[in-house]
Amino acid sequence: MRDVAVIGIGMIKWGELWEKSLRTIFVEAALNAIDDAGVDHIDSMYVGCMSSGLFVGQEHLGALLADYLGIAPVSAVRVESACASGGAAFRQGFIEVASGMSDIVLVGGVEKMTDVSGGGATFALSTAADQEYEVYNGVTFPGLYAMMARAHMERYGTTRKQLAQVAVKNHENGSKNPHAQFQMKITVDQVINSVMIADPLTILDCSPITDGAAAAILCPLEVARKISKKPVVKVKSSSAATDSIAIHQRKDITHLQAAEDAAAKAYKLAGVEPSDVDLAEVHDCFTIAEICAIEALGFVEKGKGGSATEAGETAIGGRIPINPSGGLKAKGHPVGATGVAQICEVVTQLRGDAGERQVENARIGLTQNMGGTCASCVVHILEVA
Amino acid sequence: MRDVAVIGIGMIKWGELWEKSLRTIFVEAALNAIDDAGVDHIDSMYVGCMSSGLFVGQEHLGALLADYLGIAPVSAVRVESACASGGAAFRQGFIEVASGMSDIVLVGGVEKMTDVSGGGATFALSTAADQEYEVYNGVTFPGLYAMMARAHMERYGTTRKQLAQVAVKNHENGSKNPHAQFQMKITVDQVINSVMIADPLTILDCSPITDGAAAAILCPLEVARKISKKPVVKVKSSSAATDSIAIHQRKDITHLQAAEDAAAKAYKLAGVEPSDVDLAEVHDCFTIAEICAIEALGFVEKGKGGSATEAGETAIGGRIPINPSGGLKAKGHPVGATGVAQICEVVTQLRGDAGERQVENARIGLTQNMGGTCASCVVHILEVA
Repeated sequence: MRDVAVIGIGMIKWGELWEKSLRTIFVEAALNAIDDAGVDHIDSMYVGCMSSGLFVGQEHLGALLADYLGIAPVSAVRVESACASGGAAFRQGFIEVASGMSDIVLVGGVEKMTDVSGGGATFALSTAADQEYEVYNGVTFPGLYAMMARAHMERYGTTRKQLAQVAVKNHENGSKNPHAQFQMKITVDQVINSVMIADPLTILDCSPITDGAAAAILCPLEVARKISKKPVVKVKSSSAATDSIAIHQRKDITHLQAAEDAAAKAYKLAGVEPSDVDLAEVHDCFTIAEICAIEALGFVEKGKGGSATEAGETAIGGRIPINPSGGLKAKGHPVGATGVAQICEVVTQLRGDAGERQVENARIGLTQNMGGTCASCVVHILEVA
Repeated sequence: MRDVAVIGIGMIKWGELWEKSLRTIFVEAALNAIDDAGVDHIDSMYVGCMSSGLFVGQEHLGALLADYLGIAPVSAVRVESACASGGAAFRQGFIEVASGMSDIVLVGGVEKMTDVSGGGATFALSTAADQEYEVYNGVTFPGLYAMMARAHMERYGTTRKQLAQVAVKNHENGSKNPHAQFQMKITVDQVINSVMIADPLTILDCSPITDGAAAAILCPLEVARKISKKPVVKVKSSSAATDSIAIHQRKDITHLQAAEDAAAKAYKLAGVEPSDVDLAEVHDCFTIAEICAIEALGFVEKGKGGSATEAGETAIGGRIPINPSGGLKAKGHPVGATGVAQICEVVTQLRGDAGERQVENARIGLTQNMGGTCASCVVHILEVA
């Protein structure tokens, strides 16, 4: 397999983009990535998207978006793994370049969630869970993560305040990210006293409904060294894993086994340890999710995610900065775009282009993108080459 | 890139499978493929599915089906390209094995179309077209293909009877396929006099709504030679292309440009000519689609698809047997499964296992799987190794 690099990234401002359609936001992000990479053609494209069928009544995004981007007749296909669709699409782009089949591969992620048709955004998102055993019995995603939070509090003494601190830290970071949906800082009291969604999670523990797109361009490392005018970022490893889709089938609902499995493989392939990682973008769809994720990724001991967050270890400037972009919580969570945006943030950080939210001396970054309650998980490790 | 072989295929009887769910039919087909391959593990899985979100309210099929097949924690992801999802998923499996990343990759395709929730099957299928410019203006797929048929009749003198002959031939073939949804023979008069759907297409010009799944197992060619007890079938080439999603943007609506583009690349990579191909499974979602497909693939001259069919050139025993399985028309068209089932049929033929519908001396077979009105197309060429 060939070594692979990221030579272009493209973001747009995320939010409630009423005046734009799915195709326009995708093309905007893709053109930003093409411009950033300085390439004059694309050999193949992958689109990460969770549920454009339920959100906007449109499947067949590969063909649609290749057409609107003006790159047809190249191969273009959609990849779906619920909220891990973006990471999964990036992984397919990585495999295609590594295989030698294509040189310049565009990976985009997109979700247009505010124009929802059909049963609404909560229904569309619920299709990431087990429809027969979870959703038909009335569970929604805030409910599932609330159960995980309660179990974590009971077992490890994680406090309500520690959960809230995840949101406070990510809003602090998001306030420094011009692409973030939310750019206001919040306090622990505001989180705890905001509208209850699923006890103990209030609305400020939850990532928002977002319209957004992100894109990245992959090529062989040796090509990147020749053509890139920016610091070259190598994809050191790509890994994916699955777990039982329903949480009632798991041994421990506070443990993200698929994240641990994907990370273990990614660390091994990259030849790095968790302590070598300088920053990580992790999947904080709810505050409890970030706590469970940093434990599964080996950044903190099992059960210590809450106290590490409270101690500032995961803040920019802390021992292991988590979600310097603002994470899903503040940057927004257009589900299919999230995994690609995590890549964009890590590349921005490794290039030293993150401005006010720059993690100092960032050499190795990790992304962790998960679907549902981590029934699927994709981990990538990137390094300045 | 490594040479890749298909060492296992798995089909089930297709039809209106009211007593079974999406997950059960997928697992049934996957277990048949695993049994056929004789492998004891799977390294990675791809699932081709067009719209399980709209059909059964379930996305995240990679994780769900890995769980129900009992292969978690392996990587498993869904690939979508409308009705070409199965072919696109097979292509991703091919790339992963060719890259050296994985050795034993399962590719399954599935669609459960009769349990449809939401706007019905016609709406779910329409999401393969351009929602903003085609569907919102009232066009459905029978309507789109009817326009293509009318243009083909006008321009090339293709007759109503020739269209009908495609269905007659495919039902004849399907009557010899135990997995086919329809196993009755039909006549040209029956096709012409059946219920009108979109002039000139009657219901017997249209592929049906089907519940179905299919699976195939890929591995490196050298591994196949060591472990397979059946004739080894090599994937000589894999290719995909896209075109404008809306037919009003095309120069010629009777021409499947993406099929021609994908085929041209597949022929070149495989080092074969259309005349070297012994049989093909092509995407006959409507009778006119088969006529356009065999023209785009170079099996007949442009405009001669109808007359070639009428002359028996595409029948089993003819110059170039098309859809010996019965095609989408008779075998059924569970959209995400179709592309994988095409692979199953070609492998069956190349192994010499097709019984009453066997194409004699079959050495090279081709599959052509398309999404929408051929806004995406995937072509594979397989050969007895």
